[in-house]
Amino acid sequence: MNGFRPGDPHLSEPAELYGEASEALPRELPKTVDVLIVGSGPAGLTLAAQLAAFPEIETLVVESRPGPLLLGQADGIACRTVEMFEAFGFSERVLKEAYWVNEVSFWKPDGTTPEKIVRHGRIQDTEDGLSEFPHVILNQARVHDFYLDVMRNSPTRMAPYYGLRLVDLTIAHEGPAKAHAFPVTARLERLDGEQAGRIETIEARFVVGCDGARSAVRQSLGRVLHGDSANQAWGVMDVLAVTDFPDIRLKATIHSAAEGSVLIIPREGGYLVRFYIELEKLNANERVSNRNVTVDRLIAAAQRILRPYTLEVKEVAWWSVYEIGQRLADRFDDLADEGAGDGFPRVFITGDACHTHSPKAGQGMNVSMQDSFNLGWKLAAVLTGRSAPKLLHTYSSERRAIAEELIEFDREFARMFSAKPGSASASDREVVDPVEFKNYFIRQGRFTAGTATRYRPSIITAEPAHQQLAAGFPIGMRFHSASIIRLADARPMELGHTVKADGRWRLFAFAADEDPADPSSGIGAFCWFLSTSDKSPVRRYTPAGADIDSVIDVRAIFQQPHRDLALEAMPSLLLPRKGPYGLIDYEKLFCADRTSGSDIFDLRGIDRERGCLVVVRPDQYVAHILPLDAYAALADFFAGFMVPAW
Amino acid sequence: MNGFRPGDPHLSEPAELYGEASEALPRELPKTVDVLIVGSGPAGLTLAAQLAAFPEIETLVVESRPGPLLLGQADGIACRTVEMFEAFGFSERVLKEAYWVNEVSFWKPDGTTPEKIVRHGRIQDTEDGLSEFPHVILNQARVHDFYLDVMRNSPTRMAPYYGLRLVDLTIAHEGPAKAHAFPVTARLERLDGEQAGRIETIEARFVVGCDGARSAVRQSLGRVLHGDSANQAWGVMDVLAVTDFPDIRLKATIHSAAEGSVLIIPREGGYLVRFYIELEKLNANERVSNRNVTVDRLIAAAQRILRPYTLEVKEVAWWSVYEIGQRLADRFDDLADEGAGDGFPRVFITGDACHTHSPKAGQGMNVSMQDSFNLGWKLAAVLTGRSAPKLLHTYSSERRAIAEELIEFDREFARMFSAKPGSASASDREVVDPVEFKNYFIRQGRFTAGTATRYRPSIITAEPAHQQLAAGFPIGMRFHSASIIRLADARPMELGHTVKADGRWRLFAFAADEDPADPSSGIGAFCWFLSTSDKSPVRRYTPAGADIDSVIDVRAIFQQPHRDLALEAMPSLLLPRKGPYGLIDYEKLFCADRTSGSDIFDLRGIDRERGCLVVVRPDQYVAHILPLDAYAALADFFAGFMVPAW
Repeated sequence: MNGFRPGDPHLSEPAELYGEASEALPRELPKTVDVLIVGSGPAGLTLAAQLAAFPEIETLVVESRPGPLLLGQADGIACRTVEMFEAFGFSERVLKEAYWVNEVSFWKPDGTTPEKIVRHGRIQDTEDGLSEFPHVILNQARVHDFYLDVMRNSPTRMAPYYGLRLVDLTIAHEGPAKAHAFPVTARLERLDGEQAGRIETIEARFVVGCDGARSAVRQSLGRVLHGDSANQAWGVMDVLAVTDFPDIRLKATIHSAAEGSVLIIPREGGYLVRFYIELEKLNANERVSNRNVTVDRLIAAAQRILRPYTLEVKEVAWWSVYEIGQRLADRFDDLADEGAGDGFPRVFITGDACHTHSPKAGQGMNVSMQDSFNLGWKLAAVLTGRSAPKLLHTYSSERRAIAEELIEFDREFARMFSAKPGSASASDREVVDPVEFKNYFIRQGRFTAGTATRYRPSIITAEPAHQQLAAGFPIGMRFHSASIIRLADARPMELGHTVKADGRWRLFAFAADEDPADPSSGIGAFCWFLSTSDKSPVRRYTPAGADIDSVIDVRAIFQQPHRDLALEAMPSLLLPRKGPYGLIDYEKLFCADRTSGSDIFDLRGIDRERGCLVVVRPDQYVAHILPLDAYAALADFFAGFMVPAW
Repeated sequence: MNGFRPGDPHLSEPAELYGEASEALPRELPKTVDVLIVGSGPAGLTLAAQLAAFPEIETLVVESRPGPLLLGQADGIACRTVEMFEAFGFSERVLKEAYWVNEVSFWKPDGTTPEKIVRHGRIQDTEDGLSEFPHVILNQARVHDFYLDVMRNSPTRMAPYYGLRLVDLTIAHEGPAKAHAFPVTARLERLDGEQAGRIETIEARFVVGCDGARSAVRQSLGRVLHGDSANQAWGVMDVLAVTDFPDIRLKATIHSAAEGSVLIIPREGGYLVRFYIELEKLNANERVSNRNVTVDRLIAAAQRILRPYTLEVKEVAWWSVYEIGQRLADRFDDLADEGAGDGFPRVFITGDACHTHSPKAGQGMNVSMQDSFNLGWKLAAVLTGRSAPKLLHTYSSERRAIAEELIEFDREFARMFSAKPGSASASDREVVDPVEFKNYFIRQGRFTAGTATRYRPSIITAEPAHQQLAAGFPIGMRFHSASIIRLADARPMELGHTVKADGRWRLFAFAADEDPADPSSGIGAFCWFLSTSDKSPVRRYTPAGADIDSVIDVRAIFQQPHRDLALEAMPSLLLPRKGPYGLIDYEKLFCADRTSGSDIFDLRGIDRERGCLVVVRPDQYVAHILPLDAYAALADFFAGFMVPAW
């Protein structure tokens, strides 16, 4: 679009401001930054990768570790997370390396000889059609690597600054906002090199704490995590082992009669396997670290639970013990309530910094990254002047509700896992029927896949007044992809994969069953409105000189077979001229994939007679469903949080 | 398998011999090498990447260019080539970046106003089921990058040595082979740096000329290319343009009434497009370079042919002119005939060095890489002592026959392309009916997809005595993948993707419809033979101490649904213990994919009552089809070219 350039297309042209900075070189710390990200775990790197797409935003990631993570603890990657990785451009790398969770097997004590375990069920892990991606397992460190590559290839050539520990934050709450362009002051201690111990001071417009359960950012805000300190100890180990247990390469839950429970998670590479092993009950307020659990004890417990099968551990790659606890912060930002201070938050906390839970449901890393994905585009929209700062209130309200649901789920899942197998009575929470456990597992499949998230109505999530026009795109839930055919080159592809992590809004116009080349068709009239009206959100919010799709990206999907439509007769808005040469972008027009029996109009319940408009947020969530001719309602929706470009 | 290691799984442990060599460092040239590869184009890099898998083989790649290619001319990547890329581990990178050729459109003069072109057909580019991969377009330079990554990540950390031009070769033909461990002497001129002009001498066991149409290796052998110097000039240009021609994002062939023909190939990235433009006839022995063709003339010709559509070129990324010529060397090695010299070839030529043709059929780069893929595993097998040197005779005989077919195809395709549109009479080769052209194009789809290659019977390609046991796996043709379910983890995958570019032979045992856990079943008895018999090829050819699948990799495919089979009852050969820990490899057992209606037994016509054995070469070609109990025939086949390990 901007002229031919050879080389790796993943490598962006460097922004002039930044040049060819290398993370290997000692870098000067800036005095002021737009966004200071504390922590380079999954939450911090998701946020950094999102902000790296905006060269005009100066972002600094600080990390107390001396370098990139080599071996992480988290490994479960939900379907929804792979969808997000696709938006960041590396889903195929994850799919290639990861173990795919295709099925789950359930084991319980044998009816006649309960000291032996038997398989009592085997189910598909993810229901058909839930996502175009599988549920996979991959070491957290590789996810970090992929994000670091995105950052390194971005226009800003971003890289974390290692060996810097946050000491504290102070926020200038007094006076008008304009008096404090950089209202948050962070004190950071250098941990490495000749300057170890030196305190650096950085002023930031915004600070985001992605610094884990012991978050220094959260502590600076004076927030605490509230919740249970469940007195159940668990062990986890990644091992190379020889066993005759037949489901060692399946995700398997095992309830033994008297020896406790095990969850088996096979790992990438074909040989490594993770065991989550139930240990003993702890006393009130006791920490598991006081029990001096050894890895040999973990192995012995796993061996007892697996009987009559044998387990011979050859190498332990990693192991740990932990207690289950579900804890949650009151708010995920620095506001006492939404009216405090200068009116909008300046400091945010994400991931384990604001919610902790047990690892067995495989949700922690996923929810943390979704926290950041929710926040990143909002910070970018406010910092680039596209959106009003009130947009930032939605982060805490949206994500805290999701964290509450997660903790509720985790509490129930953990209870069931630790309960003894047996016929449960309503009054005995210590006993669970393995069949009930299996059924619960099936019911909660969408939750663990990460696709159950539903944001409540807000300035960016409309009330569902027209939901019936596209019943399969619930407002507030993620835009559920389906396969379509690109009109210009007949390429089969996923519609959802057009939503990249670039901060843009998407308008997906699903055409009624009429000729789209007719200017009086619903699509024709809609494009005319967007192209010409002063009320058009595309016109109002796109800066002068910018490409027409740089803020709001309009795409159309037709019901006709792709060979029946004439590309040359389409509305010009859908064949936009872009870049310095005014080249035509041919990638806005799609047709339903009729040959394979996977017509998106059927799959998503789209009204074939009326068509509809699906408004999708930059983080892939459905914000609104409208009739194609609801011009005023569309304009009003964007006017609720966007800032006109002129 | 060898113990846990964090980090990028694509990066092999460095071989101790090589250490962490970097291509950035000045490297010492070795005095002797096992294989000297001259040229780092697609053929040279395919060979280098193949040999890089063998740390015990010392390979040197020399290239006269000062560094890696940034902008290549070739761009068509056939389905078969993507299958090969999968074996090298980077098909997903190609698929992600490339333009996908989904359909082809055909344009001819309008019946009533012949000065205007009209579309007269549109077909699917590749027939359904021909390959699991599409036909794609990607700049050659990116293919180079992917191969260079494979080499860089390999145990030998291989990188080309740039700035070295081959002056000449001498081959020591006299005396017994043992007297000349390194019988080929290469003189190389340094082109760069302080030592420019200096002549280096390297002795090699084998030399492979991948050095293009003006091959210095071929000239040293005294071989010439025979064939036509067709007197038709063509232009080619990669442009960024604005046009109202509706099929600009489709592969399109356009025959105008009086202005000639154009072939349009859209390129990766959404905007770039390649035009092949017919220019004038040349006089006998005239070179097109004498005509002083300019890019403006190419653009003007394209504009005339496209009428009534407009074409406004904004940028020319690359352009060239060429004459079509089909030329072929007598042999692709240094032997006068197969009985000459020390009995086996020492010098080989591949790709353009031994066959040239026009680029429009998109075959050149593909056939060149297949040349090298054919040769690479043979060189490795001989150098590692697994196979007898006579194996090397099959390179020239197999690949020269393919090149002959290619040239025949190209000659006909080029004739049709250059002929004037009209109703063809049998006597007029200057006129072609556009409908006939289209039909020819459809018929030849398998050829251009690269899947029509069929090697004739030889020591490594059996006579088709039992072809009826698996009609869909023709002996001599590439092993046509189909989807299957891996038994141990229920993962849906492609069976063909288990064939990696690692030099190993594969035995795919398709089970009869019986219980494989029964030791008297066909599979059970076959595994017992392979595990215990002195005649077992697995036992005969696997070195002591090596993993059981390191030379011949045995995998089994069952007809039953995967949940109906008991993993724990399978023959131990199919659950082999590997590596220093004796860990179990769970990836040898598969089941037909019944749910999706794509059962491999149906798709490939496998005899359900008898089952069968499919022997697959290291380059993915079917070598033999046998009954499961044809033990002697199997042993005889391998005895024809393999060297016993003890």
